[in-house]
Amino acid sequence: MHTHVVIMAGGIGSRLWPLSTPDVPKQFIDVLGVGRTLIQLTADRFAPVCRPQNFWVVTGERYVSLVREQLPDIPADQILAEPEGRNTAPCIAYAAWKIQQKDPEANIVVTPADALVLKTFAFADTIKKALTFTEVYDAVVTVGITPSRPETGYGYIHAAEAVQGKVVKVSEFKEKPDLPTAEAYLADGHYFWNAGIFVWKASTIMEEMRTYAPQIAGVMDRLAPSFGTEGETAALKELFPTCEKVSIDYAVMEKSDLIHVIAADLGWSDLGSWGSIKEHLEPDADGNTVVGGDVRLFGCKDCFVHAAEEKTVVVEGLEGYIVAESNGRLLVCRLSEEQRIKEFSA
Amino acid sequence: MHTHVVIMAGGIGSRLWPLSTPDVPKQFIDVLGVGRTLIQLTADRFAPVCRPQNFWVVTGERYVSLVREQLPDIPADQILAEPEGRNTAPCIAYAAWKIQQKDPEANIVVTPADALVLKTFAFADTIKKALTFTEVYDAVVTVGITPSRPETGYGYIHAAEAVQGKVVKVSEFKEKPDLPTAEAYLADGHYFWNAGIFVWKASTIMEEMRTYAPQIAGVMDRLAPSFGTEGETAALKELFPTCEKVSIDYAVMEKSDLIHVIAADLGWSDLGSWGSIKEHLEPDADGNTVVGGDVRLFGCKDCFVHAAEEKTVVVEGLEGYIVAESNGRLLVCRLSEEQRIKEFSA
Repeated sequence: MHTHVVIMAGGIGSRLWPLSTPDVPKQFIDVLGVGRTLIQLTADRFAPVCRPQNFWVVTGERYVSLVREQLPDIPADQILAEPEGRNTAPCIAYAAWKIQQKDPEANIVVTPADALVLKTFAFADTIKKALTFTEVYDAVVTVGITPSRPETGYGYIHAAEAVQGKVVKVSEFKEKPDLPTAEAYLADGHYFWNAGIFVWKASTIMEEMRTYAPQIAGVMDRLAPSFGTEGETAALKELFPTCEKVSIDYAVMEKSDLIHVIAADLGWSDLGSWGSIKEHLEPDADGNTVVGGDVRLFGCKDCFVHAAEEKTVVVEGLEGYIVAESNGRLLVCRLSEEQRIKEFSA
Repeated sequence: MHTHVVIMAGGIGSRLWPLSTPDVPKQFIDVLGVGRTLIQLTADRFAPVCRPQNFWVVTGERYVSLVREQLPDIPADQILAEPEGRNTAPCIAYAAWKIQQKDPEANIVVTPADALVLKTFAFADTIKKALTFTEVYDAVVTVGITPSRPETGYGYIHAAEAVQGKVVKVSEFKEKPDLPTAEAYLADGHYFWNAGIFVWKASTIMEEMRTYAPQIAGVMDRLAPSFGTEGETAALKELFPTCEKVSIDYAVMEKSDLIHVIAADLGWSDLGSWGSIKEHLEPDADGNTVVGGDVRLFGCKDCFVHAAEEKTVVVEGLEGYIVAESNGRLLVCRLSEEQRIKEFSA
């Protein structure tokens, strides 16, 4: 009854251009061609954990109507609109202060809107275990993903015990490693990918923010009297942009003493690159992966064609390329160069 | 006053897929991005030769509205709709029989709708000379283009004299040659590209068809009483498809004794391939050619990007490729493989 889910849906997804654009970022798109957008898939996977009345979404003002459309079961007043993006700490604080006012005993899961989890049963089980733990203890629990490869694109959580499926203390957070370090992490068994999923009581995270992010906590305390009144939007417009622009990892996770992790193999991906999406789709015998109705490949190898809006696509003689069309925008680019997409599309 | 221009606009343009499609073939498209479609450019270049009231278009039924839209000055009853395509001989016959009924002294130019002529003054001059010739003589005059390269993609006209700018007899028509033959033609000076442009009096071509294509002439004689009546469409639907499906070249040009040619350097191209269009556009320093508003190339060489409908196009790391988007269809293909486009898009 006191469980709440907060979906953070404020991202721009610039690495997946042209599929993802500032008008319709990736969380609102059916990236995998499965008939559900990423934010819908996110809500789906929390259904066993929490009733829809206790779902909250924090997003940009311009995306509120997209959220209402795609998640009609979430109460309209629980779709929180940030006047501008100030990174994750103010976003999480705003949700925590709002929820705590409504339900002082609230026990909260915070999740990004745009990641993929393939093992949804194990996921629900993991989240429930974390919630049971935070219900009892004043703890900040992160979800760690058992690494399947020496990935250099993710941050890592160094767990005090190399144990999965139960909540243990965190030794340290690690930034994106180089390849030898990532290989050492993989071999060690104490290191897990940081999925950016957090579990805590509202009272716990508020207390931690008062301690480690007092500027943001101060803004929220000034905002709180307006919550639920006609003045909330105006107050938010005035005060929210004054919050320090900082991630929850930097503001709290790397400083608090309450940090725990529950690790599991969840088939998780942040879908943060064309390459990471390609990995989750079935390739043909030549390593080509396709999302789109009528896509015809001739002499192609290891390509990723994503063109769901095109009637017909013909690609001839390419190896290792992304071909993506969406929103009247077209990208042809080597997969090996995809980290430059932000520069190309700027 | 007796000059008439017949624009043949029945082609499908399958080699320029996806720019050209059966719904909107290339003659109705602004292929070069100059603000006028190919059929409009064709009409423009005949303006010095003939008043709009004497223009005729023969096209497929489904394209009549496109012709009306794009060439509003042409009288509606001079847009002739073929119930089905039967190649050029029946098309030309239908126009000749129609025109002759209206103007027995008609002197006619027949032209494809979808070619390019860069030297429009020389072109008008050449056509006028041919018309003056056919006004006086019972002659079939073709327009020959001075070859600028040993092109293997065109048919050739072997002229009796290696003279340009005046009407001379034709020795022979030659099919598309192999490269050594094309090189010999170029060196010889008697060989000109066959542009598919013909000049003759209505009475002359009707006589030649009665002699060399009597089946088609017979159908036209049966059709003629319905011309201009309510029964024309029904009669056409019934009889036109019974015409032998044959080109004017095969039916008449290769057999008649009246065949002449007037050759000139006209900057002509049939725009029959992506490569031939690329040649007529200005490349950048890396040999890339672009049609489209916001096309961004990174590390590309000798590419042709044609994507006028896309808002933004990014292409990275390609050499010698066509990237074309149109009508919700996308092609990425090596220029060297473009003869396979018909197969790819079928």
